[in-house]
Amino acid sequence: MRYIESFRDGMHVSDVFLCKNRQVCLTKSGKEYGNLILQDKTGTIDAKIWDLGSPGIGNFEPMDYVYIDADVTVFQNSNQLNIKRARKADEGEYVPGDYLPVSSKDIGLMYEELLGFIKSLKNPYLKKLLESFFVEDTAFAKAFQFHSAAKSVHHGFVGGLLEHTLSVVKLCDYYAGYYPVINRDLLLTAAMFHDMGKTQELSSFPENDYTDDGQLLGHIIIGTEMIGERIRTIPGFPVKLTSELKHCILAHHGELEYGSPKKPAIIEALALNFADNTDAKLETMIEVLKSAGDNNGWLGYNRLMETNIRKTTE
Amino acid sequence: MRYIESFRDGMHVSDVFLCKNRQVCLTKSGKEYGNLILQDKTGTIDAKIWDLGSPGIGNFEPMDYVYIDADVTVFQNSNQLNIKRARKADEGEYVPGDYLPVSSKDIGLMYEELLGFIKSLKNPYLKKLLESFFVEDTAFAKAFQFHSAAKSVHHGFVGGLLEHTLSVVKLCDYYAGYYPVINRDLLLTAAMFHDMGKTQELSSFPENDYTDDGQLLGHIIIGTEMIGERIRTIPGFPVKLTSELKHCILAHHGELEYGSPKKPAIIEALALNFADNTDAKLETMIEVLKSAGDNNGWLGYNRLMETNIRKTTE
Amino acid sequence: MRYIESFRDGMHVSDVFLCKNRQVCLTKSGKEYGNLILQDKTGTIDAKIWDLGSPGIGNFEPMDYVYIDADVTVFQNSNQLNIKRARKADEGEYVPGDYLPVSSKDIGLMYEELLGFIKSLKNPYLKKLLESFFVEDTAFAKAFQFHSAAKSVHHGFVGGLLEHTLSVVKLCDYYAGYYPVINRDLLLTAAMFHDMGKTQELSSFPENDYTDDGQLLGHIIIGTEMIGERIRTIPGFPVKLTSELKHCILAHHGELEYGSPKKPAIIEALALNFADNTDAKLETMIEVLKSAGDNNGWLGYNRLMETNIRKTTE
Amino acid sequence: MRYIESFRDGMHVSDVFLCKNRQVCLTKSGKEYGNLILQDKTGTIDAKIWDLGSPGIGNFEPMDYVYIDADVTVFQNSNQLNIKRARKADEGEYVPGDYLPVSSKDIGLMYEELLGFIKSLKNPYLKKLLESFFVEDTAFAKAFQFHSAAKSVHHGFVGGLLEHTLSVVKLCDYYAGYYPVINRDLLLTAAMFHDMGKTQELSSFPENDYTDDGQLLGHIIIGTEMIGERIRTIPGFPVKLTSELKHCILAHHGELEYGSPKKPAIIEALALNFADNTDAKLETMIEVLKSAGDNNGWLGYNRLMETNIRKTTE
Amino acid sequence: MRYIESFRDGMHVSDVFLCKNRQVCLTKSGKEYGNLILQDKTGTIDAKIWDLGSPGIGNFEPMDYVYIDADVTVFQNSNQLNIKRARKADEGEYVPGDYLPVSSKDIGLMYEELLGFIKSLKNPYLKKLLESFFVEDTAFAKAFQFHSAAKSVHHGFVGGLLEHTLSVVKLCDYYAGYYPVINRDLLLTAAMFHDMGKTQELSSFPENDYTDDGQLLGHIIIGTEMIGERIRTIPGFPVKLTSELKHCILAHHGELEYGSPKKPAIIEALALNFADNTDAKLETMIEVLKSAGDNNGWLGYNRLMETNIRKTTE
Amino acid sequence: MRYIESFRDGMHVSDVFLCKNRQVCLTKSGKEYGNLILQDKTGTIDAKIWDLGSPGIGNFEPMDYVYIDADVTVFQNSNQLNIKRARKADEGEYVPGDYLPVSSKDIGLMYEELLGFIKSLKNPYLKKLLESFFVEDTAFAKAFQFHSAAKSVHHGFVGGLLEHTLSVVKLCDYYAGYYPVINRDLLLTAAMFHDMGKTQELSSFPENDYTDDGQLLGHIIIGTEMIGERIRTIPGFPVKLTSELKHCILAHHGELEYGSPKKPAIIEALALNFADNTDAKLETMIEVLKSAGDNNGWLGYNRLMETNIRKTTE
Repeated sequence: MRYIESFRDGMHVSDVFLCKNRQVCLTKSGKEYGNLILQDKTGTIDAKIWDLGSPGIGNFEPMDYVYIDADVTVFQNSNQLNIKRARKADEGEYVPGDYLPVSSKDIGLMYEELLGFIKSLKNPYLKKLLESFFVEDTAFAKAFQFHSAAKSVHHGFVGGLLEHTLSVVKLCDYYAGYYPVINRDLLLTAAMFHDMGKTQELSSFPENDYTDDGQLLGHIIIGTEMIGERIRTIPGFPVKLTSELKHCILAHHGELEYGSPKKPAIIEALALNFADNTDAKLETMIEVLKSAGDNNGWLGYNRLMETNIRKTTE
Repeated sequence: MRYIESFRDGMHVSDVFLCKNRQVCLTKSGKEYGNLILQDKTGTIDAKIWDLGSPGIGNFEPMDYVYIDADVTVFQNSNQLNIKRARKADEGEYVPGDYLPVSSKDIGLMYEELLGFIKSLKNPYLKKLLESFFVEDTAFAKAFQFHSAAKSVHHGFVGGLLEHTLSVVKLCDYYAGYYPVINRDLLLTAAMFHDMGKTQELSSFPENDYTDDGQLLGHIIIGTEMIGERIRTIPGFPVKLTSELKHCILAHHGELEYGSPKKPAIIEALALNFADNTDAKLETMIEVLKSAGDNNGWLGYNRLMETNIRKTTE
Repeated sequence: MRYIESFRDGMHVSDVFLCKNRQVCLTKSGKEYGNLILQDKTGTIDAKIWDLGSPGIGNFEPMDYVYIDADVTVFQNSNQLNIKRARKADEGEYVPGDYLPVSSKDIGLMYEELLGFIKSLKNPYLKKLLESFFVEDTAFAKAFQFHSAAKSVHHGFVGGLLEHTLSVVKLCDYYAGYYPVINRDLLLTAAMFHDMGKTQELSSFPENDYTDDGQLLGHIIIGTEMIGERIRTIPGFPVKLTSELKHCILAHHGELEYGSPKKPAIIEALALNFADNTDAKLETMIEVLKSAGDNNGWLGYNRLMETNIRKTTE
Repeated sequence: MRYIESFRDGMHVSDVFLCKNRQVCLTKSGKEYGNLILQDKTGTIDAKIWDLGSPGIGNFEPMDYVYIDADVTVFQNSNQLNIKRARKADEGEYVPGDYLPVSSKDIGLMYEELLGFIKSLKNPYLKKLLESFFVEDTAFAKAFQFHSAAKSVHHGFVGGLLEHTLSVVKLCDYYAGYYPVINRDLLLTAAMFHDMGKTQELSSFPENDYTDDGQLLGHIIIGTEMIGERIRTIPGFPVKLTSELKHCILAHHGELEYGSPKKPAIIEALALNFADNTDAKLETMIEVLKSAGDNNGWLGYNRLMETNIRKTTE
Repeated sequence: MRYIESFRDGMHVSDVFLCKNRQVCLTKSGKEYGNLILQDKTGTIDAKIWDLGSPGIGNFEPMDYVYIDADVTVFQNSNQLNIKRARKADEGEYVPGDYLPVSSKDIGLMYEELLGFIKSLKNPYLKKLLESFFVEDTAFAKAFQFHSAAKSVHHGFVGGLLEHTLSVVKLCDYYAGYYPVINRDLLLTAAMFHDMGKTQELSSFPENDYTDDGQLLGHIIIGTEMIGERIRTIPGFPVKLTSELKHCILAHHGELEYGSPKKPAIIEALALNFADNTDAKLETMIEVLKSAGDNNGWLGYNRLMETNIRKTTE
Repeated sequence: MRYIESFRDGMHVSDVFLCKNRQVCLTKSGKEYGNLILQDKTGTIDAKIWDLGSPGIGNFEPMDYVYIDADVTVFQNSNQLNIKRARKADEGEYVPGDYLPVSSKDIGLMYEELLGFIKSLKNPYLKKLLESFFVEDTAFAKAFQFHSAAKSVHHGFVGGLLEHTLSVVKLCDYYAGYYPVINRDLLLTAAMFHDMGKTQELSSFPENDYTDDGQLLGHIIIGTEMIGERIRTIPGFPVKLTSELKHCILAHHGELEYGSPKKPAIIEALALNFADNTDAKLETMIEVLKSAGDNNGWLGYNRLMETNIRKTTE
């Protein structure tokens, strides 16, 4: 398959792409044409169907995989596709994994590493709670590995939720080793669960957009409820531990104005907030620097960093 | 019984009071003495036991009801009790209701009014949910009527939670009548439930202080979970309605920095936020003005109103 | 008359419209053409005069009513008019009311209701002051009924100032009934006057834009001065009542950063602030939801609500 | 007369002082005693009347001038007076000027300088308006010279309003000379009037406290109304000029959160804001440094400067 | 020379301009063309080279002075140049001063005035320090006179840094005359140095853009280091004076959130902050009003003034 | 030696203590007495000299080590010393280390660990710069090991600067291992230097208070200048690397309002900000929890954490 990032002016393309968006527009002379956004895992591209009535143009919907015949042209410094023929692709014609941005790390290995951390815990209740999700609840386990950690911003790719969670768990493990007052079992459990609500806040790929519950409740509350509900099925789970674990989830954004209804009141909540924030912000900057390609100069004002930024000189 | 607000210099007092606080202190000459705070429903008073070793001084703990013999004196412009004799009171010696600040409105009548609003709703799921708490769950119903709405600030008395809730419900009913786009059933249900988490955020009277869950989770999250758990027992409760109801509870403080993890996204959440805020702030000012007694001049800077305030001229 | 909201591609239109804006532009080939915005009470539309030198194109100015012959075309998904002939309309050819957005409620009835509230007051000075504006000052009374409450945002239509004022008065009446400490006469008077300065802050329809005084002084100060000046003509008007009434007007935005030079220091000022804010925000959301038409999904980020919003599910 | 700042332990004092405050308190043994604050222009001192029933103690009220016989003692590192005899002083026994903090500059000369600036203006309307206050309105002129510019903070002394106003006028005169785009007549007029509302916001010395209007309306609004009312008595006063002058008064605090209902929209309003702020802040720091006496080290955190401060090394 | 601001549709232009920017773009049909921005001291203009291969089009780079033959056309209401011939200009063909925005005041005279202030100081160390930069360090002196005070905002022209510095020095001189507690030598020295770091924060004209050090360190830190380094070459320079001078530079933005790492702790730092802020804001408004040309109405919302603004009525 | 934390009512004490503070006060009866604060490494205690004229009371100054004879009494629940005899101690009579709070970790070992990190770097310029301070500059090395990291808040003890620096270096080392894009040499160098300015911002123990430079310039600027000055002595030190290193120091507080004049613009600056903040906040909470002793309940509102806090349940 020829990927979008390799398109050059004048190429002819005959391949399947994911249709992210499809609209009918009017030319200045009043003629209708089709305006599409096509996607594969290397990026997206605008595509036009100038002759919607052509017999070669079949029916398809947004989020369909579509087989197209098209020419690459350049418009306002960007590549564009002029589509000659298009039809909905059959299931066997494509591999979904080719069409989604995906973690550069191996999802299976990362998950193994996460399970290893669960095994290392000592508190039987926390261990049982973690296993009930990550080991026994296969639907959850699958969703957790496949999900992104964001619609955009950072870790917005397949496996992103797992990759971010693992980074946070490891950083928390480092903290727990360095500051002995920290309760490692509580902190690592909270770290593994802290963004679990994102499995319901965001719909799955390829859509990866906010759900109704995501907008009305948010992943912090969804995750807290998921934990509360599951704990009620584990006899003898300590009451104080339940509250402390939920508190860590609730407080992990650190400040009320960032959506946490409580500020960290115990040290594990504070540590989780730092681990989450550190990985989120560093990964955000890493993704911004990567997307700059060969540009080693100043990249202008970055809204997330709230300052002009640039790569470090070698 | 002779109430605290009627004490005058030189009186002798022989009655039962609630002991809110008890500490042992040292005089400048190094002698130990007892420092108490006694309470009845009209207020609190400092009390001293200068001779802790006296045979007339029995054992008792904070939150005990205590029978005392004492003289009223004046120290730095405030009344004070010099206790001669003290002992833990027996259950029959006092009526608990005499020792707690209590709503000036009839709790039974207010509750009837609240049940009347439930009857007026049309949506069977919301009605069933409300009845499952306010009618069938007698422990909840009793706690709800007895609870305050705050440790201090506004409605900090027995029946305060009910009184505030009813005010909010009525104001919401007014809104629903005036702005037809509002879904009355959803808004009134949310209004009745909005502070239900306070039954667990604050301990019961006479203590009336934050619980562990109150500090770690807060009444917004506690209430949301209570609703979520109960809804799961009602077959067929609509999914979207569940989310919208929870959203109203979550968003009723209106701003992230006031502890709501989401801002109002539907009009009922916005309306509930206004009703809650209006009653809370007006009641706060009413309580401040009342506590000023006969002072018709400027009352100085009020931290809650963030300005100097005074009563309105007749 | 054929209204703008009913235009469809290919229609021919021969009618009078209000010309909100008129500019001369250049085509890419350097030729001048006319660029207009036409308005009726159902909306606005872009219109082009491609041949400015044509004998059918007469002279007219912005804010003139203009008779046009034109064809409806579609450009970039929006309707547009290609004007063939245009001339200033004569006075008898149109009814101004057809060209302005107007309250959906009957202005006469609303005004009657407002006058009813004035009659219900007991304080003779406040009553006299209200009548001197709403009854005896016919220029003011006419302007008050015709004015909008805003250039945009909420109640931005003919009768909007009256409609908003009446809503605030009624809500204040509800408060005064529920919280007995409130001085009803003072609160209702302040409610009726609170936005009176908008009659000078905004010019009349069809312009409905900020005046010089509106920008330099604002409706809060203008209204306070209007009241102060009129009170000086009423012998014996109590001094304290004057200050309290002015204070309510000054403080009705509630916070310094919203343009009130004082925060509410008496309970009527606080109550007015809540009533104004409640009606303004709920009406804003109602107008946003209405403008979404049939869209029952998420409407995206709303700048005024500072969050994503959607309609409530039936 | 022996001034308060010269009192030393063991001195006997027989003189007249202004009684700022008078309360009856109780000793620990329950005996009533009198607690006074006495003032002269060099400071204030606590004074006690231990035997209220003594025949030497006459009747007097706060704000009376009182003749006392007393001994200076030291309590907790501060001087204190033990009063033996006290009576209301007769008018001839004291010179009021001895009892008030007063500008170190000559009030008459400063006023002459202010009048000189009025003469230098060219716009006849502004000149007439200024003269109607500062020349023809003798009650206003007298109050203006006698008033302080603040209850505390800066320029809180007799003549303070005049001294601050003159500083602002001169700085504005400097601006007008340096930046030719500035309308000198408008700016200097606004400078002379900018704090005129303080003559009603604060009561006269010796009380010098906020009035009811001061608290409800504030000097910005009071001043704006004073100008508006007076202008209506001057035929032909230009409408735009009226609005611009009022705007300068309204906007002179520069930011909404500092109590200005409008931000500066014309350059004279902006310039006035800078002149006012510069003199107010520099004078505040000068007064703080003066009050530190010989202390050349760090003076600790200063709430007004929001930082630790110290004097500059010689 | 024919300046850009005098171009009209249809003119033919044969002159040298500064090439600020040069890019190769693609037409819709895929053909390359040149897209330039040309500048002279009266403004900038877009220019196109439609036939890049033409023998008349020579090689040149951004920031070169370029001789062009071109026609003026109008596109979307703006002038544009169609370039027929272009080549890099020789040094003798143009006067650089014609291509840069430049102070309207005489740079030489302003510099003389600045040197006069240095002569007026009494402290030998400060004098020596100033002379070491402004008199002896000819590279610095030249850069200081040529530099702008900003990339945009205010004083963004050749001589702007000097003009702004002189205004601040004069205002500080006024302060020092009016408030005797101010140490004039320290304040005027700090004023002359306060923005000296801009000679390294911004590159020279014609580029006038942020340097790497400008972005990473900022002019406040750069200037502080420049002073510190130079002082180490002056034997006996007092330690406290060094710290106070550096502090004035560091604190001259007045607030941490404006980039000062310390708030003003001595009165000269506070005075410098006011002088800098006053000149910067007034000059900003003056430049905005100038750029409005003949428009005497409201100029809309101004981001720097955070309000709508207009010129003052004559 | 008997340490302050072991004092009990009635003990007699004969030992040397550090005199942190000494004042002469007056009793209510006007008699002078001495008011001292004595310190050892376990805490501080108030001490009184009731008879200043006694022959046993010698001369000494604050910050002297003083030999005292005294009795322990209890006043208002705190221990207090009544001093009978006091004299300045001779050098051989005490070990300074007994009088200062000191890190619980071995300073020598920590310093070895720090030097190990320097050895692990590859960039010769950064290594040389680090060695010039930590190895060759023995005065700096000694001060660095002895200094605290704060006057109060966190790490406010001997060795605190080293302990905090080492924690930050290790956390940065972890980051550099986890995120390969990070330049480890730059980050670790910046980490080692980030608070070096504190050696001049705070005076040495036992005083440990802000210096004049500390207040006027702050450790961020002092450190940046120290680095800049030293780099100028290292031939060939890369210019960009200098700027990036300084930028990391300047930006390590992360936000302008926390005293950084620049926000992090390169990833090492961002990483350093997170490492510093994480260790500072976690250590602050750890110190607060430790100081709570056996209290396992809620510890009330903590100003640094901006919330109520408590220890985690075992």
